[in-house]
Amino acid sequence: MDAELDFDKLGGLIPAVVQDASDGEVLMVGFMNQQAFDLTLSGGYVTFFSRTRQKLWTKGESSGNRLRLTSVTTDCDRDTLLFRVEVEGAGLVCHRGTRSCFTEPLPLAASEPAVRKEIR
Amino acid sequence: MDAELDFDKLGGLIPAVVQDASDGEVLMVGFMNQQAFDLTLSGGYVTFFSRTRQKLWTKGESSGNRLRLTSVTTDCDRDTLLFRVEVEGAGLVCHRGTRSCFTEPLPLAASEPAVRKEIR
Repeated sequence: MDAELDFDKLGGLIPAVVQDASDGEVLMVGFMNQQAFDLTLSGGYVTFFSRTRQKLWTKGESSGNRLRLTSVTTDCDRDTLLFRVEVEGAGLVCHRGTRSCFTEPLPLAASEPAVRKEIR
Repeated sequence: MDAELDFDKLGGLIPAVVQDASDGEVLMVGFMNQQAFDLTLSGGYVTFFSRTRQKLWTKGESSGNRLRLTSVTTDCDRDTLLFRVEVEGAGLVCHRGTRSCFTEPLPLAASEPAVRKEIR
């Protein structure tokens, strides 16, 4: 099964979207190499490969907010993963103490980009 | 605003998760370079940078199933984007004719990985 995933497209890594199984909120995106993927499926908890630290990293291993798998899906070209999870512990996925890492809204542009640049 | 996003971490690209604004379904993941991001925000429709074709690609430009932005969020380290969208046209995002690209369920492992390898 593992061999069918396309790890080559991104130099050995696959982006992994983590979604709350209960309400569909997107909680975070991380990257997995083959080993992280194997550990995630065998252990039942999401383990990433940290690009900044260059090591495996089981999300929540210190905070207790581990991500327990309820389902795993890949996409049509098998180069991305979608994990639906239940968040254990306090249910706070982000190290900043929020439920999701996606906490920074960006304004939708109402005008032409060149104009915005002049204003900035 | 654009300069605050971290395009460097992945060689000029940022992964972009596309989620249906109406029900939270994750529809697809693509990649954006700075130009694709600017075009997406200025035009109001999701434009990716295709890694395989090495060119900009406005999702749905030929099928009509364009992805109209309702909100854009970035995460705590500003290296990932989450787009909530309304799907226009027939509402089918995947080129295979399905609503989402995430159509391939993977089995959750029930046994130890080494054992699975021997069986395979």
